[in-house]
Amino acid sequence: MMKEAKIPDATIERISLYSRPLERILERGVAVVSSEQLARFCRVNPAQVRKDLSYFGEFGVRGIGYNVRDLLREIKKILVSDREWRLGIVGLGNLGKALVQHENFLNRGYEFVAAFDVDPAKIGFRLPGGLVIEPPSKIQPLTRSLAIEVGLIATPPEEAEGVANLLVHAGIKAILNFAPTQLRQRKCCLVENVDFTVTLDNLAYHVNQRVKEGS
Amino acid sequence: MMKEAKIPDATIERISLYSRPLERILERGVAVVSSEQLARFCRVNPAQVRKDLSYFGEFGVRGIGYNVRDLLREIKKILVSDREWRLGIVGLGNLGKALVQHENFLNRGYEFVAAFDVDPAKIGFRLPGGLVIEPPSKIQPLTRSLAIEVGLIATPPEEAEGVANLLVHAGIKAILNFAPTQLRQRKCCLVENVDFTVTLDNLAYHVNQRVKEGS
Repeated sequence: MMKEAKIPDATIERISLYSRPLERILERGVAVVSSEQLARFCRVNPAQVRKDLSYFGEFGVRGIGYNVRDLLREIKKILVSDREWRLGIVGLGNLGKALVQHENFLNRGYEFVAAFDVDPAKIGFRLPGGLVIEPPSKIQPLTRSLAIEVGLIATPPEEAEGVANLLVHAGIKAILNFAPTQLRQRKCCLVENVDFTVTLDNLAYHVNQRVKEGS
Repeated sequence: MMKEAKIPDATIERISLYSRPLERILERGVAVVSSEQLARFCRVNPAQVRKDLSYFGEFGVRGIGYNVRDLLREIKKILVSDREWRLGIVGLGNLGKALVQHENFLNRGYEFVAAFDVDPAKIGFRLPGGLVIEPPSKIQPLTRSLAIEVGLIATPPEEAEGVANLLVHAGIKAILNFAPTQLRQRKCCLVENVDFTVTLDNLAYHVNQRVKEGS
């Protein structure tokens, strides 16, 4: 069913975004959704929804919409979110603790299996949920023995690059960096920097557009 | 200098993303950057960079690159990040506390001027940085008196929609929701839901693509 075209990153992110309201729609027992409805939920335009979904084959029936269950199953297959991913996190300050406890991760098949911090006062501490904070020297052995695929970094900015090196040496496949610094890209490992202010910039831009348009 | 074309959301977010490495490049005293360099920093392709920047006029010199200082100034003008934005936050658990202390916000001109929580045990508590946690009854008067434009929500999911209503009634212009639930859209106010797992889905997709390609 899946076309083998090169799919843009932005499409992958929107596809993931579409799955959120689809899950709620399915829970409510609704069988069919239109591109207009899906677009409204996700604040994109309907033509964009149709274009994004067209990469993955023909789900839709013109003038009717998409079968919610089929669409969701296909999206999960595309995103490989029909399986579990094992995460390790480094840095258990407020942000790290918030991430470990955030309900969305487990709901989406992302399970934290290890937590690391440099602070001796934190090592050995048991987090809500049961994980015990380990020292950085355990990053390599635990990444291997627990088959951790993705590492999250929530350290202060000056520690992030060093932590990324430790994760890379341990054979991690991908890094999601929440520290307020941009990690450099590596060949062996995917690196994604999360910056909340990018989203705020986008909101600020639109607030200003609205003011200009006088709405 | 700025064209009056309708600029896609994805372009706005990438423009904001480009400004991050540009600031570091400028600090290092580099005068010119190529679309290839900028693309590598931001993990997009060079044609995309050129296309995005073309919305805003002619910055580049073919075969040479972009003047870093001019480009950055123009981006800040576009994003309206050359002024201060006043933020209020509701929900001071781990995530809320992490957001208030996150260095990137202030660096980008986003200043938290008020913090609210329903928990009586937290009200009156002074956060690092000096903000005192206020009860929800203060959302309306403080949003007005402090001219808060953007509200961040970091409450448990079941409280988020009610909090959004309070912010909307107080006349807020935009909401950035970090609670693990999708807030419904409102006409009077921009609502953006932040979901970390969307980024994780994207990483997971690419990890899998690499495995498939055998790299």
